[in-house]
Amino acid sequence: MPKPKKHVLVCVQGRPPGHPRGSCQQKGCSEVYQAFLETFQARNLWNEYAVTNTGCLGPCGTGPSVLVYPEGVMYAGVTAGDVGAIIDEHLIGGSPVARLQAPAEVW
Amino acid sequence: MPKPKKHVLVCVQGRPPGHPRGSCQQKGCSEVYQAFLETFQARNLWNEYAVTNTGCLGPCGTGPSVLVYPEGVMYAGVTAGDVGAIIDEHLIGGSPVARLQAPAEVW
Repeated sequence: MPKPKKHVLVCVQGRPPGHPRGSCQQKGCSEVYQAFLETFQARNLWNEYAVTNTGCLGPCGTGPSVLVYPEGVMYAGVTAGDVGAIIDEHLIGGSPVARLQAPAEVW
Repeated sequence: MPKPKKHVLVCVQGRPPGHPRGSCQQKGCSEVYQAFLETFQARNLWNEYAVTNTGCLGPCGTGPSVLVYPEGVMYAGVTAGDVGAIIDEHLIGGSPVARLQAPAEVW
């Protein structure tokens, strides 16, 4: 693929039940990752943008975590319902979605 | 963690033997990922830089693939022996390692 205009990284890290850090998987990241894939497919976004699943991105406590480069904007507590806003406002519109950004103390 | 100065993404994607795309795992990415982790630990780089394992980054044919943001520099055919150069020259020195960069046609 060509170098994408924006690259969406979706944490899909899992941890065993009861682990003190929890995990994005426990908080529903699989639905978020799936929603990005399905929307990219439906809207034919793969030529200009990329989505990749990742291991731990760091802020497990505020997951599901989604990180968008090149800006390095970290989103916290993302749900499948937020995926459209991230795509429309940030990827295509160029303005990060302020209401979803992780608190400054975690990123 | 705080927002890192540079974020190293290491593809650790595997595919079944005989798969036409091959995979970075088949080409030795685990040693590359491990070398980043060990070097970050030994040199105490975690406060300023980040390393994350990822699913497929795209250019499977030229793997192991390592991608560094915010520049969006894709490295191809990376070995554990290249990790020191990427850290010293690119992460700390600020100059991407030209000899390791992926060809323009794949990124």
